[in-house]
Amino acid sequence: MLLTADFYEMNKVIITVAITGGLHGKEANPNLPEQPDEQAQSAYDCYNAGASICHLHVRDKAGKSTGNLKVYEDAISKIRAKSPILVQVGNGIGQYIDEEGKQRTHSDEHRMKLLDIKPKPDIITINAGSFDFSGVLFPNSPDFNRKFVKGANERNIPIECEVYDISHVANIKRLVSEGVLKEPVHYSLVLGIDGGIPATPENMLRLVAELPEGSSWQAIAISRYQLPLTVAAMCMGANIRTGLEDNVYIRRSQLAKSNAQLVERVVKIARDLGREVATVEDTKKAFHILD
Amino acid sequence: MLLTADFYEMNKVIITVAITGGLHGKEANPNLPEQPDEQAQSAYDCYNAGASICHLHVRDKAGKSTGNLKVYEDAISKIRAKSPILVQVGNGIGQYIDEEGKQRTHSDEHRMKLLDIKPKPDIITINAGSFDFSGVLFPNSPDFNRKFVKGANERNIPIECEVYDISHVANIKRLVSEGVLKEPVHYSLVLGIDGGIPATPENMLRLVAELPEGSSWQAIAISRYQLPLTVAAMCMGANIRTGLEDNVYIRRSQLAKSNAQLVERVVKIARDLGREVATVEDTKKAFHILD
Amino acid sequence: MLLTADFYEMNKVIITVAITGGLHGKEANPNLPEQPDEQAQSAYDCYNAGASICHLHVRDKAGKSTGNLKVYEDAISKIRAKSPILVQVGNGIGQYIDEEGKQRTHSDEHRMKLLDIKPKPDIITINAGSFDFSGVLFPNSPDFNRKFVKGANERNIPIECEVYDISHVANIKRLVSEGVLKEPVHYSLVLGIDGGIPATPENMLRLVAELPEGSSWQAIAISRYQLPLTVAAMCMGANIRTGLEDNVYIRRSQLAKSNAQLVERVVKIARDLGREVATVEDTKKAFHILD
Amino acid sequence: MLLTADFYEMNKVIITVAITGGLHGKEANPNLPEQPDEQAQSAYDCYNAGASICHLHVRDKAGKSTGNLKVYEDAISKIRAKSPILVQVGNGIGQYIDEEGKQRTHSDEHRMKLLDIKPKPDIITINAGSFDFSGVLFPNSPDFNRKFVKGANERNIPIECEVYDISHVANIKRLVSEGVLKEPVHYSLVLGIDGGIPATPENMLRLVAELPEGSSWQAIAISRYQLPLTVAAMCMGANIRTGLEDNVYIRRSQLAKSNAQLVERVVKIARDLGREVATVEDTKKAFHILD
Repeated sequence: MLLTADFYEMNKVIITVAITGGLHGKEANPNLPEQPDEQAQSAYDCYNAGASICHLHVRDKAGKSTGNLKVYEDAISKIRAKSPILVQVGNGIGQYIDEEGKQRTHSDEHRMKLLDIKPKPDIITINAGSFDFSGVLFPNSPDFNRKFVKGANERNIPIECEVYDISHVANIKRLVSEGVLKEPVHYSLVLGIDGGIPATPENMLRLVAELPEGSSWQAIAISRYQLPLTVAAMCMGANIRTGLEDNVYIRRSQLAKSNAQLVERVVKIARDLGREVATVEDTKKAFHILD
Repeated sequence: MLLTADFYEMNKVIITVAITGGLHGKEANPNLPEQPDEQAQSAYDCYNAGASICHLHVRDKAGKSTGNLKVYEDAISKIRAKSPILVQVGNGIGQYIDEEGKQRTHSDEHRMKLLDIKPKPDIITINAGSFDFSGVLFPNSPDFNRKFVKGANERNIPIECEVYDISHVANIKRLVSEGVLKEPVHYSLVLGIDGGIPATPENMLRLVAELPEGSSWQAIAISRYQLPLTVAAMCMGANIRTGLEDNVYIRRSQLAKSNAQLVERVVKIARDLGREVATVEDTKKAFHILD
Repeated sequence: MLLTADFYEMNKVIITVAITGGLHGKEANPNLPEQPDEQAQSAYDCYNAGASICHLHVRDKAGKSTGNLKVYEDAISKIRAKSPILVQVGNGIGQYIDEEGKQRTHSDEHRMKLLDIKPKPDIITINAGSFDFSGVLFPNSPDFNRKFVKGANERNIPIECEVYDISHVANIKRLVSEGVLKEPVHYSLVLGIDGGIPATPENMLRLVAELPEGSSWQAIAISRYQLPLTVAAMCMGANIRTGLEDNVYIRRSQLAKSNAQLVERVVKIARDLGREVATVEDTKKAFHILD
Repeated sequence: MLLTADFYEMNKVIITVAITGGLHGKEANPNLPEQPDEQAQSAYDCYNAGASICHLHVRDKAGKSTGNLKVYEDAISKIRAKSPILVQVGNGIGQYIDEEGKQRTHSDEHRMKLLDIKPKPDIITINAGSFDFSGVLFPNSPDFNRKFVKGANERNIPIECEVYDISHVANIKRLVSEGVLKEPVHYSLVLGIDGGIPATPENMLRLVAELPEGSSWQAIAISRYQLPLTVAAMCMGANIRTGLEDNVYIRRSQLAKSNAQLVERVVKIARDLGREVATVEDTKKAFHILD
């Protein structure tokens, strides 16, 4: 897809906040919400600051990444109770430590169950291919993805596609050509994960070049690369994601006070750039979310 | 040159403000300064707002673009009297209308005389090749550029190179290989001029890819492309230029109140991005300007 | 335009031979044809070898580049008399030395007269912008190009567009958007001229990326860059140009025996690559040349 | 790494022939050698035609892909007995069908044993990351690759790195920064595998752009993309690989008679391009293979 630098052609910018990731926790930033109540408050504050999507991973009582469906249900219920922000669940769930102390990812069977969480997530992300995520195999086979997206389609849950390299974009296009995914696809270009495409502007543009015209996209980058790459993307018409999952700092050596503080900064920059921020209603339309 | 999205590796950002261009005037925005007194006030306000370089073209009493050296001297003197902002003169001067009503550019002989303006400009820009600027031939032959840079070298006036396409970068490299220009070169990548490379993020990255490692650069873009491209560049480690020469609007359909307002916005974004703004002293070091 | 490496999607390859350029002559390679009779023989040999277009510049009796229309007419008549190869005239004509010993290009007025040569050329090339060609200004203003193409349209002479940088592609697109040129446009991407975009594979792909889908293209490169870049382009679906204008060597330090020898080599490679060579009839269709 | 199109700067071209792959067999082309005697004859013919490296996978008596070390030893012994061509073993081995009829890849433990084959292979290839190869997970974890390369280093077996996407190049650079791999690294850029980066010229150049300066490289492409992409790469200074593993056709709809026929074509093109073909001695030097 060809990029534009023409603001007159840019849509409203959708702000996603990834309040809690599947890896680091309060040890990295004590302001990172781990428990459902904290998450609901954080999502509420981010909604007030301008975010319309809350990307969600959950933690057990000890703060460890978990795939426990009950916790997902608790967290989503509590977020919904406090604000209309849309809840997006990452189907990677996150790595966990098994009994032998080894990093592991969740089974395909378990991940499929995310489709039946109640209340239903507004959006679910898939990961567009298998690779070694920070040295640990993260399997996302075409068969699994096909089955997962079909399940999501049956339940009217829209999909956002996380791609970690150019081959992943080709994997998504194959699902489109099979009729499993419908265009325009929402792409999240993930840059800077150890094992994925490195976080450089060149790589971001290479990924965008492979997207079909009319695709919706945002960049996801980590740590010191997060702010420059995502703001550069916003300057090129992309949506934007922030949050303590991606970056625990507000500036060099200074921890962010909250997810909302990160959202506020993005909103300020968006306004300075003259890009209008999408409301929840705008975002529902963009993702064809039915009431 | 390979780009980085790593803030920890980025230098302080030098802000240049192009307060008055060689084409449009008060008919485009009544707040555009045309006379030396206005220019001095505008430069002073921009200096207070955070700019360290004032890019300068001058106008006659009627507000028309002029190459009159006396006016240059008057303007520079007045700017210097009010603030320590560095004055950068564009050696293209600007087009003028001749007696037959035809758009014309200034002769090489006349442009050479810019080197002897008193007080001496802090920096002079050259244009790295001939092309049809909005349909009017803008001649910048290798011979002229070679002679001009040699003259600037003899007078200890540092050079900034405006490139309008990939071939222009090659032209500059040739001057470096001849020993006429010294590295690191300061490049201004001009995008979106009718006759130059179009203003797209892809083209900006193509130009950067051709710069030697260690080069200093900024993007110059016009009108609706100005803000998104220059901020995207700033996210990639570049310096930034703003001002009423490049963009008369603060946002869609809303004229900017002043050059300083445009500088203030850039400063705000730079701070949100965590990039420190270069002082005049910092900029003098970057350009090897002797006191 | 996106490139393909899929042979099944590639058209027949049109081979153009530039038998005589506007710069070097027999002093560079004694086998370079200069006089109309030599040119006719060379074109005939190239036609037999597989070329379907003969790109033409002409020389005076002393072998110097000339814009003399009578010589053009003589050369075209003689070429036509010996073979059905299509004759393509370059509207740049070539530089000449004026009475003061200075390199000069021909006036717009003189170049316009190429449109009225008898017999009529089958194709004429335009140059898509002004620049310093090896240090000498080569003016090709939008006004001149517009007027020239309109003249060619009136005479049913198809146009091929020589672009020397990315801005030149934008210039051509503007002529298309004005309705002056019709798509698909035939582009010749000229790489490696001193003053134009450097001859690298990266630059070739950057130029192609800017072409509209469905465009027809070939690379023109000079000297040591000629064979690798043009064959790489042929591997990507392009047409190909060879000839003593572009490269006087058959291999390192070994002068080519003839234009036909260069064509033969290209034909051999095309066949090894499985690309069928376009006949004159095929090329007429591609350029919409009426009988 | 920046590409050149300058023949004067290009090294001799190393020709690798992949005589037998790990997927298709005689059902795709009856001339594909499967048994060690056939393989030795094929390697011998390819050596005579100009190849200096034979890339090897082996088959059981029924022609099915196998990881049986005895078969490797038999094949290498027989190839060595007939010609001095260098033997390169692919450490992916190839997929096999397990007892339940499911496609599977070999265990890390089994693949490690390739390091102790007698006679010792001249070169071994690694695969620079995990991904879904035609829908089947192909695990190549950083830990496995690190351990494998260390084992190869201890045995003085040089490594060639097969990369299937941009992230894989980053994986290899990490091994270099850890001191496990030494530069210059030999890269094989694999394009067009289902699950890997698609086979386009743009993607090939994107991969090359990520290689460190001074790297040695070749393209590997499959089927209809094989010839155009690998020859385009050869035009840009790369080495080249051909063979019935990559392409069973000599031209559209026409099966190749032999691996040697494919090598002969490549040699012809290399000569037409003016690139000298590396001998086995040249290739030994390039890979630092000790006698």
